[in-house]
Amino acid sequence: MTSLHGKHLIAGERRRDAEAQHRATQAATGEALDPAVADASAAEIDAAFAAAVAAHRALDPLVEPDLAAKTAAFLEAIGAHIEGLGDALVERATAETGLPQGRIVGERGRTINQLRSFAALVREGSWVGARIDRALPERQPIPRPDLRRMLVPVGPVVVFGASNFPLAFSVAGGDAASALAAGCPVIAKAHPSHPGTSELVGEAITAAARECAMPAGVFSLVHGPSHAVGQALVRHPSARAVGFTGSLRGGRALLEAAASRPDPIPVFAEMGSVNPVVFLPGALRERGAALATQAAGSITLGVGQFCTNPGVLLVPAGETGDAFVAGLAEALGAAGAGVMLDPNILAGYRRGVEARAASAHAERVPLTCAGPETRGLPALFTTTATALAADPSLREELFGPASLVVRWRDADDLLAALEGFEGQLSATVHAAENSDDAGLVRRVAPVLSRRVGRLLFGGFPTGVEVCPSMQHGGPWPASSDARTTSVGTAAIERFARPLCLQSAPAALVPPALQDQNPLGLLRLVDGVPTRDAL
Amino acid sequence: MTSLHGKHLIAGERRRDAEAQHRATQAATGEALDPAVADASAAEIDAAFAAAVAAHRALDPLVEPDLAAKTAAFLEAIGAHIEGLGDALVERATAETGLPQGRIVGERGRTINQLRSFAALVREGSWVGARIDRALPERQPIPRPDLRRMLVPVGPVVVFGASNFPLAFSVAGGDAASALAAGCPVIAKAHPSHPGTSELVGEAITAAARECAMPAGVFSLVHGPSHAVGQALVRHPSARAVGFTGSLRGGRALLEAAASRPDPIPVFAEMGSVNPVVFLPGALRERGAALATQAAGSITLGVGQFCTNPGVLLVPAGETGDAFVAGLAEALGAAGAGVMLDPNILAGYRRGVEARAASAHAERVPLTCAGPETRGLPALFTTTATALAADPSLREELFGPASLVVRWRDADDLLAALEGFEGQLSATVHAAENSDDAGLVRRVAPVLSRRVGRLLFGGFPTGVEVCPSMQHGGPWPASSDARTTSVGTAAIERFARPLCLQSAPAALVPPALQDQNPLGLLRLVDGVPTRDAL
Repeated sequence: MTSLHGKHLIAGERRRDAEAQHRATQAATGEALDPAVADASAAEIDAAFAAAVAAHRALDPLVEPDLAAKTAAFLEAIGAHIEGLGDALVERATAETGLPQGRIVGERGRTINQLRSFAALVREGSWVGARIDRALPERQPIPRPDLRRMLVPVGPVVVFGASNFPLAFSVAGGDAASALAAGCPVIAKAHPSHPGTSELVGEAITAAARECAMPAGVFSLVHGPSHAVGQALVRHPSARAVGFTGSLRGGRALLEAAASRPDPIPVFAEMGSVNPVVFLPGALRERGAALATQAAGSITLGVGQFCTNPGVLLVPAGETGDAFVAGLAEALGAAGAGVMLDPNILAGYRRGVEARAASAHAERVPLTCAGPETRGLPALFTTTATALAADPSLREELFGPASLVVRWRDADDLLAALEGFEGQLSATVHAAENSDDAGLVRRVAPVLSRRVGRLLFGGFPTGVEVCPSMQHGGPWPASSDARTTSVGTAAIERFARPLCLQSAPAALVPPALQDQNPLGLLRLVDGVPTRDAL
Repeated sequence: MTSLHGKHLIAGERRRDAEAQHRATQAATGEALDPAVADASAAEIDAAFAAAVAAHRALDPLVEPDLAAKTAAFLEAIGAHIEGLGDALVERATAETGLPQGRIVGERGRTINQLRSFAALVREGSWVGARIDRALPERQPIPRPDLRRMLVPVGPVVVFGASNFPLAFSVAGGDAASALAAGCPVIAKAHPSHPGTSELVGEAITAAARECAMPAGVFSLVHGPSHAVGQALVRHPSARAVGFTGSLRGGRALLEAAASRPDPIPVFAEMGSVNPVVFLPGALRERGAALATQAAGSITLGVGQFCTNPGVLLVPAGETGDAFVAGLAEALGAAGAGVMLDPNILAGYRRGVEARAASAHAERVPLTCAGPETRGLPALFTTTATALAADPSLREELFGPASLVVRWRDADDLLAALEGFEGQLSATVHAAENSDDAGLVRRVAPVLSRRVGRLLFGGFPTGVEVCPSMQHGGPWPASSDARTTSVGTAAIERFARPLCLQSAPAALVPPALQDQNPLGLLRLVDGVPTRDAL
């Protein structure tokens, strides 16, 4: 395995002011993994931001006419350097997270694809939303000036690595890739459960920045095992936006820190979700056994450690529903225990399962599986739509391979239960075509759609496609800003803001807004979309 | 004049639970104006939101296939009903605000044009940003599902009327028009300085809603002379977003209320700005006298009560600059005193002028004008770039016909002064072509662009064009979210969020996302913009 140094990467320089005391844990064995890392010092954080501010000034569409091409090349180089890490990255990520090698290899592919997809978006360039309204000097009662508007980078972005996606939502994950794609410098905070993976990826980005002659401050990586580092990053005067994927509690703490700044900044936090899945009677009659197996697969995928994990299943009362629950319990039992990401997450999961088992409003379904205390065992609970209303904790996320079956009697019972849910990343309806389900799905869909970012008809919510149409984000508490997504190319919009130039001399107009449209962008000219020159 | 009732309009019904005790003031005379209004009660606020929630459910793209056409017709009908108010509206608004009749007539025209421009945007329909990624059932290792994404309304929006735009930024102003255009119900809070104008416009919207068979809860108007009503609106569980134009203090209070909700919601607040105007030496040599007259006109336009008022002018040291300041002082003196919007604003302006006059770091320039104590007198101050750094209060907005001239010695002095400014709605540079200004403007423009939403080359910032390219909003404290604008068609984006439908049956897909593209929208299909059917 490549030898690791455990230092921060501050604008291309390795540095560590404080004594390194924190080590990650090998997820499968509980053993400590070298090297140790330390909290970033205030001086290190200041240095990262000072370099980021300088990079922001250099990566300015008014200053750097080749910003799009440079950025695209940089994103592609990051992908190539991550690929170049080879097995060392897979081994370290597997050790730190307990995720199987196949999953890490797949996640690496997704991470590189994300970088390439943002590179393609930036190279094409129309994402800047160029709009031009030409001067109307003869207009009465007053002339109209020439107005040209495009998106520009917001400035230094703080990105928090997520424990459950050591690659795709960490140092070079979706938040970092979209911020860099927007032209923003990134200061990444490594997740303390995978500091080695973070270092490897951070070195890959640093090498790519050097290779592409980007300003060094375009990227820094800091470690921060204690919460103080995260707070300091969000409160730093030079931070302009924050990307976070994690728990509701963690996200809320960052939001409060950001809102209490003298100059509040946005925190794009993707937080908890139970992703309700509604089964209608026709669907269960048609394919109940298969759905039970698929549901168990979705619940236990990645040992339940996905934000799109189906945490609540709404199943009709009666025999068909009973058979589905029995099949689900059998399949969950067969799935067995899995290694969870880190000891804190395992402990949190076990506490959550015990608390739910103790609820007067839910019952635990016995499963056949057993396993060592060091692993996450699937868990299944049942309740009724009525009882669900009595215990709001049942609608909270239980991070791990657990799900709650809610039995409903009739359409009104189901709809009332659905109205009780807060915002979700996703919701799913299973309905049979050409059955009685058709009328009900028309009533269920709008109730769900008002609470979610993504509404699935069939299938299961785990497995989030990375493409322009994806929406990964939803009303609170699924995410802090339902108008944004953290997956898919639209994620770039979080880190850019419009700038309007009025009557700008031609020599000062960036390529995206020039008369001749040298980049061939799709632009809105006098209200009409076109790729034509003026 | 039409007789006014002074009641709230709750989903089409006139209602007033509390005793009416607050009267507006005739701005020019200080006399109280009938009728009195009262704070909305908790029950009235609840009723408005309950109706708004019902309207939101009805105005859902999954439920109402003709949403775009209905919304466009509604916006046009509002414009027609406001036009139909005729002289009564102009008279009342003039009395309540002290703004001259010509200004009110112009603002009415702008307000109606805004409504029509949003109607056209919604009727064309592409603003929903439809994206379709078709299913790839044969893809390896896993198939891609069919994904379709569009913007949907966020839900009930609270709109605060602004004192300085009784029509264009109040009950049917830009915030309300963009929220309604997005398909959201609006609960408008009348500004207490123009309750009668608010009532007239509120009745026009109510009549339009009835005529267009919109759900009654699509619009409510509540009065709230005390801050408690605004707080209650922002904290109401059913509120989904807030639009506000006003002071930094007022905006911050609403932001804090929204951030401390169990489920935080966005507040789109357009707040203070001093809109720095930089004069380079060549420009002053070429046309200094004309610029002085134009600057005075911009400073005193609307008695200085515009958020784009040029509050700081950066003028080079030396004779050309001296002549400019002398010309400016003369023109401001000639402009004379004006009636301000209400007694509180006048008192605030007078206090601000006195405080600035008392600053050890600025000097008051004597002006020839005089006037009654009941009017706002122009005021001019000077300081140096060095002294500006010593007193941060000099960079704060002074709402009224005042400006501060900052004399700078050389390029470094100027650039250092500019780096000290916080976020601004706008900044302006005056430079002469083919002069020494050319080099300096290249250095000044990026420094300004990083702090503003709109950067002007020549001209003055007052006068904000309503068009797709406009950006009215900037980094904090100019606005609470620099990624948004409150003027121009892009303002609609504040009140919509993406919804992704995965594998939706054709019968449930809204028109914007249907295979045949029946609305003829510009859509992104498999990453390519097109108006073609699938």
